[in-house]
Amino acid sequence: MTRQLFELAGSDPARVFSPYCWRTRMALAHKGLDFKTVPWRFMQKDAIKSHASEKVPVLVDGETSVNDSWTIANYLEDKYPQRPSLFGGEGGRAMARMLNNWSDVSVGQISPFIIADIHAQLDSGDQEYFRRTREKNFGKKLEDVVRGREDRIDGLRKWLHPLRMTLRAQPYLGGTAPNYADYIVFGPFQWARVTSPFELLTPDDVIYAWREKLLDAFGGMARQSPAVAA
Amino acid sequence: MTRQLFELAGSDPARVFSPYCWRTRMALAHKGLDFKTVPWRFMQKDAIKSHASEKVPVLVDGETSVNDSWTIANYLEDKYPQRPSLFGGEGGRAMARMLNNWSDVSVGQISPFIIADIHAQLDSGDQEYFRRTREKNFGKKLEDVVRGREDRIDGLRKWLHPLRMTLRAQPYLGGTAPNYADYIVFGPFQWARVTSPFELLTPDDVIYAWREKLLDAFGGMARQSPAVAA
Repeated sequence: MTRQLFELAGSDPARVFSPYCWRTRMALAHKGLDFKTVPWRFMQKDAIKSHASEKVPVLVDGETSVNDSWTIANYLEDKYPQRPSLFGGEGGRAMARMLNNWSDVSVGQISPFIIADIHAQLDSGDQEYFRRTREKNFGKKLEDVVRGREDRIDGLRKWLHPLRMTLRAQPYLGGTAPNYADYIVFGPFQWARVTSPFELLTPDDVIYAWREKLLDAFGGMARQSPAVAA
Repeated sequence: MTRQLFELAGSDPARVFSPYCWRTRMALAHKGLDFKTVPWRFMQKDAIKSHASEKVPVLVDGETSVNDSWTIANYLEDKYPQRPSLFGGEGGRAMARMLNNWSDVSVGQISPFIIADIHAQLDSGDQEYFRRTREKNFGKKLEDVVRGREDRIDGLRKWLHPLRMTLRAQPYLGGTAPNYADYIVFGPFQWARVTSPFELLTPDDVIYAWREKLLDAFGGMARQSPAVAA
Protein backbone atom coordinates (compact mmCIF):
# COMPACT_ATOMS: atom_id res chain seq x y z
CA MET A 1 0.00 0.00 0.00
CA THR A 2 1.25 3.47 -0.82
CA ARG A 3 0.99 6.24 1.73
CA GLN A 4 1.56 9.83 0.70
CA LEU A 5 1.59 13.02 2.69
CA PHE A 6 1.12 16.30 0.88
CA GLU A 7 3.15 18.85 2.84
CA LEU A 8 3.71 22.56 2.40
CA ALA A 9 7.29 23.16 1.23
CA GLY A 10 9.49 26.16 0.54
CA SER A 11 11.75 26.79 -2.43
CA ASP A 12 13.79 23.88 -1.06
CA PRO A 13 11.35 20.96 -1.42
CA ALA A 14 12.94 19.40 1.68
CA ARG A 15 11.93 22.41 3.75
CA VAL A 16 8.47 21.29 4.85
CA PHE A 17 7.38 23.93 7.29
CA SER A 18 3.64 24.03 7.99
CA PRO A 19 2.94 23.65 11.73
CA TYR A 20 -0.07 21.51 10.86
CA CYS A 21 1.90 19.25 8.53
CA TRP A 22 4.50 18.77 11.26
CA ARG A 23 1.81 17.51 13.61
CA THR A 24 0.85 14.89 11.03
CA ARG A 25 4.44 14.01 10.22
CA MET A 26 5.19 13.36 13.89
CA ALA A 27 1.94 11.40 14.29
CA LEU A 28 2.85 9.11 11.40
CA ALA A 29 6.30 8.53 12.89
CA HIS A 30 4.74 7.82 16.30
CA LYS A 31 2.56 5.16 14.69
CA GLY A 32 5.59 3.80 12.88
CA LEU A 33 3.94 4.32 9.49
CA ASP A 34 6.15 4.96 6.48
CA PHE A 35 5.06 7.62 4.06
CA LYS A 36 6.24 9.35 0.94
CA THR A 37 6.27 13.13 1.25
CA VAL A 38 4.82 15.12 -1.64
CA PRO A 39 6.08 18.70 -1.50
CA TRP A 40 3.22 21.08 -2.14
CA ARG A 41 3.05 24.83 -2.70
CA PHE A 42 0.24 27.32 -2.19
CA MET A 43 -0.10 27.70 -5.95
CA GLN A 44 -0.79 23.99 -6.44
CA LYS A 45 -4.44 23.90 -5.42
CA ASP A 46 -5.14 21.62 -8.36
CA ALA A 47 -2.78 18.95 -7.05
CA ILE A 48 -5.00 18.26 -4.02
CA LYS A 49 -8.40 19.09 -5.50
CA SER A 50 -9.01 15.42 -6.21
CA HIS A 51 -8.62 14.82 -2.46
CA ALA A 52 -11.40 17.33 -1.71
CA SER A 53 -9.03 19.73 -0.01
CA GLU A 54 -7.65 23.19 -0.59
CA LYS A 55 -5.11 22.92 2.20
CA VAL A 56 -2.44 20.58 3.48
CA PRO A 57 -1.78 18.27 5.20
CA VAL A 58 -3.53 15.76 3.00
CA LEU A 59 -2.83 12.13 3.80
CA VAL A 60 -3.46 9.57 1.10
CA ASP A 61 -3.53 6.22 2.87
CA GLY A 62 -4.02 3.60 0.19
CA GLU A 63 -7.48 4.32 -1.18
CA THR A 64 -8.40 6.80 1.58
CA SER A 65 -7.78 10.54 1.48
CA VAL A 66 -7.91 12.46 4.74
CA ASN A 67 -7.28 16.15 5.27
CA ASP A 68 -6.95 18.47 8.29
CA SER A 69 -4.33 17.56 10.90
CA TRP A 70 -6.87 16.89 13.67
CA THR A 71 -8.98 14.66 11.44
CA ILE A 72 -5.88 12.82 10.29
CA ALA A 73 -4.73 12.17 13.88
CA ASN A 74 -8.12 10.71 14.75
CA TYR A 75 -8.12 8.66 11.56
CA LEU A 76 -4.69 7.21 12.36
CA GLU A 77 -5.69 6.39 15.93
CA ASP A 78 -8.81 4.55 14.78
CA LYS A 79 -7.31 2.90 11.71
CA TYR A 80 -4.16 1.66 13.47
CA PRO A 81 -5.26 0.92 17.05
CA GLN A 82 -2.61 -1.76 17.56
CA ARG A 83 0.20 0.71 17.03
CA PRO A 84 1.34 3.13 19.78
CA SER A 85 -1.55 5.32 20.86
CA LEU A 86 -1.54 9.00 19.93
CA PHE A 87 -3.92 9.97 22.72
CA GLY A 88 -3.53 7.50 25.58
CA GLY A 89 -7.24 6.79 25.76
CA GLU A 90 -10.52 8.55 25.11
CA GLY A 91 -9.95 11.17 27.81
CA GLY A 92 -6.72 12.16 26.12
CA ARG A 93 -8.37 12.27 22.73
CA ALA A 94 -11.03 14.66 24.02
CA MET A 95 -8.60 16.90 25.90
CA ALA A 96 -6.17 16.99 22.98
CA ARG A 97 -8.78 18.96 21.05
CA MET A 98 -8.48 21.83 23.52
CA LEU A 99 -4.69 21.66 23.29
CA ASN A 100 -5.07 21.73 19.53
CA ASN A 101 -7.11 24.92 19.74
CA TRP A 102 -4.70 26.48 22.21
CA SER A 103 -1.81 25.61 19.91
CA ASP A 104 -3.62 27.11 16.94
CA VAL A 105 -3.64 30.36 18.89
CA SER A 106 0.10 29.90 19.38
CA VAL A 107 0.49 29.96 15.60
CA GLY A 108 -1.04 33.41 15.64
CA GLN A 109 1.18 34.41 18.56
CA ILE A 110 4.37 33.24 16.84
CA SER A 111 3.52 34.50 13.37
CA PRO A 112 4.45 38.19 13.97
CA PHE A 113 7.98 37.10 14.88
CA ILE A 114 8.71 35.04 11.76
CA ILE A 115 6.30 35.96 8.96
CA ALA A 116 8.85 37.89 6.88
CA ASP A 117 11.35 35.05 7.25
CA ILE A 118 8.78 32.54 6.04
CA HIS A 119 8.30 34.64 2.92
CA ALA A 120 12.02 34.47 2.19
CA GLN A 121 11.93 30.67 2.24
CA LEU A 122 9.02 30.30 -0.16
CA ASP A 123 9.08 29.14 -3.72
CA SER A 124 9.09 32.21 -5.95
CA GLY A 125 5.68 31.24 -7.30
CA ASP A 126 4.23 31.40 -3.79
CA GLN A 127 5.81 34.63 -2.62
CA GLU A 128 3.40 37.11 -4.23
CA TYR A 129 0.36 35.19 -2.97
CA PHE A 130 1.77 34.86 0.52
CA ARG A 131 2.73 38.52 0.81
CA ARG A 132 -0.58 39.77 -0.55
CA THR A 133 -2.80 37.61 1.67
CA ARG A 134 -0.74 38.01 4.86
CA GLU A 135 -0.22 41.73 4.45
CA LYS A 136 -3.95 42.11 4.01
CA ASN A 137 -4.51 40.23 7.30
CA PHE A 138 -1.93 42.20 9.24
CA GLY A 139 -2.70 45.52 7.57
CA LYS A 140 1.00 46.22 7.07
CA LYS A 141 4.10 45.06 5.26
CA LEU A 142 5.61 41.77 6.45
CA GLU A 143 8.87 43.54 7.24
CA ASP A 144 6.97 45.97 9.47
CA VAL A 145 5.14 43.12 11.21
CA VAL A 146 8.37 41.57 12.46
CA ARG A 147 10.13 44.85 13.23
CA GLY A 148 11.02 45.23 16.90
CA ARG A 149 10.52 41.55 17.60
CA GLU A 150 13.41 41.49 20.07
CA ASP A 151 11.43 43.90 22.22
CA ARG A 152 8.25 41.86 22.02
CA ILE A 153 9.57 38.35 22.59
CA ASP A 154 9.12 38.48 26.36
CA GLY A 155 5.39 38.75 25.78
CA LEU A 156 5.33 35.51 23.83
CA ARG A 157 7.48 33.76 26.42
CA LYS A 158 5.07 34.85 29.12
CA TRP A 159 2.11 33.69 27.04
CA LEU A 160 3.71 30.24 26.90
CA HIS A 161 3.67 29.95 30.69
CA PRO A 162 1.01 27.19 30.95
CA LEU A 163 3.21 25.03 28.74
CA ARG A 164 6.27 25.85 30.84
CA MET A 165 4.52 25.01 34.10
CA THR A 166 3.37 21.68 32.70
CA LEU A 167 6.83 20.72 31.49
CA ARG A 168 8.30 21.58 34.87
CA ALA A 169 6.03 18.93 36.35
CA GLN A 170 6.25 16.15 33.77
CA PRO A 171 8.58 15.33 30.86
CA TYR A 172 5.98 15.58 28.10
CA LEU A 173 2.45 16.90 27.64
CA GLY A 174 1.53 13.26 27.05
CA GLY A 175 3.13 12.23 30.35
CA THR A 176 6.33 10.21 30.66
CA ALA A 177 6.61 9.77 26.88
CA PRO A 178 5.52 12.05 24.02
CA ASN A 179 2.21 11.60 22.30
CA TYR A 180 0.02 13.66 20.00
CA ALA A 181 -0.42 16.36 22.66
CA ASP A 182 3.29 17.08 22.25
CA TYR A 183 3.21 17.02 18.46
CA ILE A 184 0.29 19.47 18.47
CA VAL A 185 2.34 22.02 20.37
CA PHE A 186 5.69 21.17 18.77
CA GLY A 187 4.39 21.91 15.26
CA PRO A 188 4.43 25.71 15.61
CA PHE A 189 7.92 25.64 17.17
CA GLN A 190 9.23 23.54 14.32
CA TRP A 191 7.52 25.85 11.82
CA ALA A 192 9.51 28.73 13.31
CA ARG A 193 12.72 26.75 13.45
CA VAL A 194 12.75 25.75 9.78
CA THR A 195 11.81 29.17 8.44
CA SER A 196 13.38 31.78 10.72
CA PRO A 197 16.71 32.52 12.42
CA PHE A 198 14.84 34.24 15.24
CA GLU A 199 15.02 32.22 18.46
CA LEU A 200 11.73 32.10 20.32
CA LEU A 201 13.09 30.43 23.46
CA THR A 202 16.01 30.85 25.82
CA PRO A 203 18.27 27.84 26.45
CA ASP A 204 17.41 27.82 30.15
CA ASP A 205 13.70 27.39 29.39
CA VAL A 206 12.24 23.94 30.06
CA ILE A 207 10.29 24.40 26.81
CA TYR A 208 13.62 24.64 25.00
CA ALA A 209 14.78 21.34 26.53
CA TRP A 210 11.48 19.68 25.62
CA ARG A 211 11.81 20.93 22.03
CA GLU A 212 15.32 19.48 21.89
CA LYS A 213 13.98 16.06 22.86
CA LEU A 214 11.31 16.20 20.17
CA LEU A 215 13.91 17.27 17.61
CA ASP A 216 15.78 14.08 18.50
CA ALA A 217 12.69 11.84 18.40
CA PHE A 218 12.24 9.29 15.61
CA GLY A 219 15.91 9.25 14.72
CA GLY A 220 16.18 13.01 14.68
CA MET A 221 13.54 13.45 11.98
CA ALA A 222 12.69 17.03 12.94
CA ARG A 223 16.29 18.02 13.59
CA GLN A 224 17.37 16.82 10.17
CA SER A 225 14.86 19.04 8.44
CA PRO A 226 16.46 22.10 6.82
CA ALA A 227 16.55 24.96 9.29
CA VAL A 228 17.62 28.58 9.13
CA ALA A 229 20.74 29.22 11.16
CA ALA A 230 20.54 32.10 13.58
CA MET B 1 -15.47 6.90 57.34
CA THR B 2 -15.70 10.64 57.56
CA ARG B 3 -14.72 12.80 54.62
CA GLN B 4 -14.24 16.51 55.05
CA LEU B 5 -13.44 19.24 52.56
CA PHE B 6 -12.03 22.52 53.85
CA GLU B 7 -13.32 25.17 51.48
CA LEU B 8 -12.83 28.91 51.30
CA ALA B 9 -16.08 30.65 52.27
CA GLY B 10 -17.36 34.21 52.41
CA SER B 11 -19.28 35.91 55.20
CA ASP B 12 -22.07 33.51 54.26
CA PRO B 13 -20.53 30.12 55.13
CA ALA B 14 -22.56 28.58 52.29
CA ARG B 15 -20.80 30.82 49.78
CA VAL B 16 -17.81 28.63 48.96
CA PHE B 17 -16.06 30.46 46.16
CA SER B 18 -12.47 29.38 45.54
CA PRO B 19 -11.98 28.24 41.92
CA TYR B 20 -9.67 25.52 43.21
CA CYS B 21 -12.13 24.28 45.81
CA TRP B 22 -14.83 24.11 43.13
CA ARG B 23 -12.63 21.82 41.08
CA THR B 24 -12.39 19.47 44.06
CA ARG B 25 -16.08 19.76 44.92
CA MET B 26 -17.06 18.77 41.38
CA ALA B 27 -14.48 15.95 41.38
CA LEU B 28 -15.92 14.49 44.58
CA ALA B 29 -19.43 14.66 43.11
CA HIS B 30 -18.19 13.02 39.89
CA LYS B 31 -16.80 10.15 41.95
CA GLY B 32 -20.06 9.98 43.90
CA LEU B 33 -18.24 10.56 47.19
CA ASP B 34 -20.12 12.27 50.00
CA PHE B 35 -18.28 14.86 52.01
CA LYS B 36 -18.87 17.33 54.76
CA THR B 37 -17.88 20.86 53.87
CA VAL B 38 -15.86 22.80 56.43
CA PRO B 39 -16.10 26.55 55.70
CA TRP B 40 -12.67 28.11 56.03
CA ARG B 41 -11.46 31.70 56.00
CA PHE B 42 -8.07 33.19 55.14
CA MET B 43 -7.56 34.06 58.81
CA GLN B 44 -7.92 30.43 59.90
CA LYS B 45 -4.46 29.17 58.99
CA ASP B 46 -4.35 27.29 62.28
CA ALA B 47 -7.39 25.20 61.35
CA ILE B 48 -5.52 23.45 58.52
CA LYS B 49 -2.00 23.53 59.93
CA SER B 50 -2.39 19.98 61.22
CA HIS B 51 -3.01 18.92 57.61
CA ALA B 52 0.32 20.40 56.53
CA SER B 53 -1.32 23.07 54.42
CA GLU B 54 -1.68 26.83 54.42
CA LYS B 55 -4.26 26.84 51.64
CA VAL B 56 -7.49 25.16 50.69
CA PRO B 57 -8.81 22.89 49.34
CA VAL B 58 -7.76 20.36 51.95
CA LEU B 59 -9.45 16.99 51.72
CA VAL B 60 -9.50 14.82 54.81
CA ASP B 61 -10.42 11.36 53.60
CA GLY B 62 -10.60 9.17 56.68
CA GLU B 63 -7.04 9.10 57.98
CA THR B 64 -5.54 10.75 54.91
CA SER B 65 -5.09 14.49 54.40
CA VAL B 66 -4.50 15.75 50.86
CA ASN B 67 -4.11 19.34 49.74
CA ASP B 68 -3.85 21.14 46.41
CA SER B 69 -6.67 20.59 43.90
CA TRP B 70 -4.48 18.82 41.33
CA THR B 71 -3.02 16.47 43.94
CA ILE B 72 -6.49 15.77 45.29
CA ALA B 73 -7.84 14.90 41.83
CA ASN B 74 -5.00 12.44 41.29
CA TYR B 75 -5.50 10.98 44.76
CA LEU B 76 -9.21 10.44 44.10
CA GLU B 77 -8.57 8.83 40.73
CA ASP B 78 -6.05 6.41 42.24
CA LYS B 79 -7.88 5.74 45.49
CA TYR B 80 -11.29 5.15 43.89
CA PRO B 81 -10.50 3.59 40.50
CA GLN B 82 -13.80 1.68 40.33
CA ARG B 83 -15.80 4.89 40.40
CA PRO B 84 -16.30 7.08 37.29
CA SER B 85 -12.94 8.19 35.94
CA LEU B 86 -11.91 11.81 36.28
CA PHE B 87 -9.42 11.63 33.42
CA GLY B 88 -10.53 8.93 30.99
CA GLY B 89 -7.17 7.21 31.01
CA GLU B 90 -3.53 8.08 31.43
CA GLY B 91 -3.39 10.30 28.35
CA GLY B 92 -6.20 12.38 29.77
CA ARG B 93 -4.50 12.58 33.15
CA ALA B 94 -1.31 13.89 31.55
CA MET B 95 -3.07 16.39 29.29
CA ALA B 96 -5.31 17.62 32.10
CA ARG B 97 -2.23 19.08 33.74
CA MET B 98 -1.77 21.48 30.85
CA LEU B 99 -5.45 22.41 31.02
CA ASN B 100 -4.97 22.97 34.73
CA ASN B 101 -2.13 25.38 34.06
CA TRP B 102 -4.08 27.15 31.32
CA SER B 103 -7.05 27.48 33.65
CA ASP B 104 -4.82 28.88 36.39
CA VAL B 105 -3.95 31.64 33.95
CA SER B 106 -7.68 32.16 33.45
CA VAL B 107 -7.95 32.92 37.17
CA GLY B 108 -5.53 35.77 36.62
CA GLN B 109 -7.44 36.86 33.53
CA ILE B 110 -10.80 36.91 35.33
CA SER B 111 -9.57 38.43 38.57
CA PRO B 112 -9.45 42.08 37.36
CA PHE B 113 -13.17 41.88 36.57
CA ILE B 114 -14.38 40.63 39.96
CA ILE B 115 -11.76 41.29 42.63
CA ALA B 116 -13.63 44.15 44.31
CA ASP B 117 -16.82 42.10 44.35
CA ILE B 118 -15.01 39.20 46.00
CA HIS B 119 -13.91 41.54 48.75
CA ALA B 120 -17.53 42.53 49.41
CA GLN B 121 -18.49 38.89 49.97
CA LEU B 122 -15.74 38.13 52.46
CA ASP B 123 -16.03 37.61 56.17
CA SER B 124 -15.14 40.88 57.88
CA GLY B 125 -12.12 39.22 59.44
CA ASP B 126 -10.74 38.41 55.99
CA GLN B 127 -11.40 41.73 54.29
CA GLU B 128 -8.39 43.65 55.52
CA TYR B 129 -6.01 40.80 54.66
CA PHE B 130 -7.53 40.32 51.22
CA ARG B 131 -7.45 44.02 50.34
CA ARG B 132 -3.90 44.50 51.56
CA THR B 133 -2.39 41.48 49.77
CA ARG B 134 -4.34 41.92 46.51
CA GLU B 135 -3.80 45.66 46.31
CA LYS B 136 -0.11 45.06 46.78
CA ASN B 137 -0.15 42.59 43.85
CA PHE B 138 -2.14 44.88 41.54
CA GLY B 139 -0.43 48.06 42.68
CA LYS B 140 -3.77 49.84 42.99
CA LYS B 141 -7.03 49.87 44.89
CA LEU B 142 -9.42 46.99 44.21
CA GLU B 143 -12.08 49.44 43.05
CA ASP B 144 -9.64 50.86 40.53
CA VAL B 145 -8.70 47.38 39.30
CA VAL B 146 -12.25 46.59 38.22
CA ARG B 147 -13.07 50.07 36.91
CA GLY B 148 -13.88 50.11 33.20
CA ARG B 149 -14.44 46.35 33.10
CA GLU B 150 -17.29 46.71 30.59
CA ASP B 151 -14.76 48.10 28.15
CA ARG B 152 -12.26 45.31 28.75
CA ILE B 153 -14.52 42.27 28.71
CA ASP B 154 -14.13 41.66 24.98
CA GLY B 155 -10.45 40.98 25.61
CA LEU B 156 -11.26 38.20 28.06
CA ARG B 157 -13.86 36.73 25.73
CA LYS B 158 -11.30 36.68 22.95
CA TRP B 159 -8.74 35.08 25.25
CA LEU B 160 -11.22 32.27 25.89
CA HIS B 161 -11.33 31.38 22.20
CA PRO B 162 -9.56 28.00 22.44
CA LEU B 163 -12.23 26.91 24.92
CA ARG B 164 -14.99 28.18 22.65
CA MET B 165 -13.60 26.39 19.60
CA THR B 166 -13.39 23.15 21.54
CA LEU B 167 -16.96 23.38 22.81
CA ARG B 168 -18.19 24.06 19.30
CA ALA B 169 -16.78 20.70 18.30
CA GLN B 170 -17.70 18.54 21.29
CA PRO B 171 -20.11 18.86 24.25
CA TYR B 172 -17.46 18.83 26.99
CA LEU B 173 -13.72 19.17 27.31
CA GLY B 174 -13.82 15.56 28.50
CA GLY B 175 -15.72 14.49 25.37
CA THR B 176 -19.36 13.42 25.30
CA ALA B 177 -19.65 13.70 29.09
CA PRO B 178 -17.94 16.01 31.56
CA ASN B 179 -14.84 14.95 33.43
CA TYR B 180 -12.11 16.64 35.43
CA ALA B 181 -11.01 18.67 32.38
CA ASP B 182 -14.36 20.42 32.58
CA TYR B 183 -14.22 20.96 36.33
CA ILE B 184 -10.75 22.48 36.01
CA VAL B 185 -12.04 25.16 33.67
CA PHE B 186 -15.45 25.53 35.30
CA GLY B 187 -13.94 26.42 38.67
CA PRO B 188 -12.93 29.99 37.73
CA PHE B 189 -16.32 30.64 36.12
CA GLN B 190 -18.12 29.48 39.25
CA TRP B 191 -15.78 31.59 41.39
CA ALA B 192 -16.92 34.63 39.40
CA ARG B 193 -20.57 33.61 39.50
CA VAL B 194 -20.78 33.25 43.27
CA THR B 195 -18.90 36.45 44.08
CA SER B 196 -19.75 38.98 41.37
CA PRO B 197 -22.78 40.35 39.50
CA PHE B 198 -20.56 41.00 36.49
CA GLU B 199 -21.37 38.65 33.62
CA LEU B 200 -18.28 37.31 31.89
CA LEU B 201 -20.10 35.62 29.02
CA THR B 202 -22.84 36.45 26.55
CA PRO B 203 -25.86 34.12 26.36
CA ASP B 204 -25.12 33.25 22.73
CA ASP B 205 -21.65 31.95 23.64
CA VAL B 206 -21.22 28.17 23.57
CA ILE B 207 -19.15 28.58 26.74
CA TYR B 208 -22.25 30.02 28.42
CA ALA B 209 -24.31 26.98 27.40
CA TRP B 210 -21.58 24.64 28.63
CA ARG B 211 -21.48 26.48 31.98
CA GLU B 212 -25.25 26.09 32.26
CA LYS B 213 -24.92 22.32 31.88
CA LEU B 214 -22.27 22.16 34.58
CA LEU B 215 -24.41 24.29 36.88
CA ASP B 216 -27.10 21.64 36.44
CA ALA B 217 -24.76 18.69 36.98
CA PHE B 218 -24.97 16.60 40.14
CA GLY B 219 -28.50 17.70 40.94
CA GLY B 220 -27.71 21.36 40.38
CA MET B 221 -25.00 21.47 43.05
CA ALA B 222 -23.21 24.48 41.56
CA ARG B 223 -26.40 26.31 40.64
CA GLN B 224 -27.72 26.03 44.20
CA SER B 225 -24.65 27.70 45.63
CA PRO B 226 -25.30 31.31 46.70
CA ALA B 227 -24.64 33.62 43.80
CA VAL B 228 -24.69 37.39 43.35
CA ALA B 229 -27.54 38.51 41.13
CA ALA B 230 -26.61 40.79 38.28
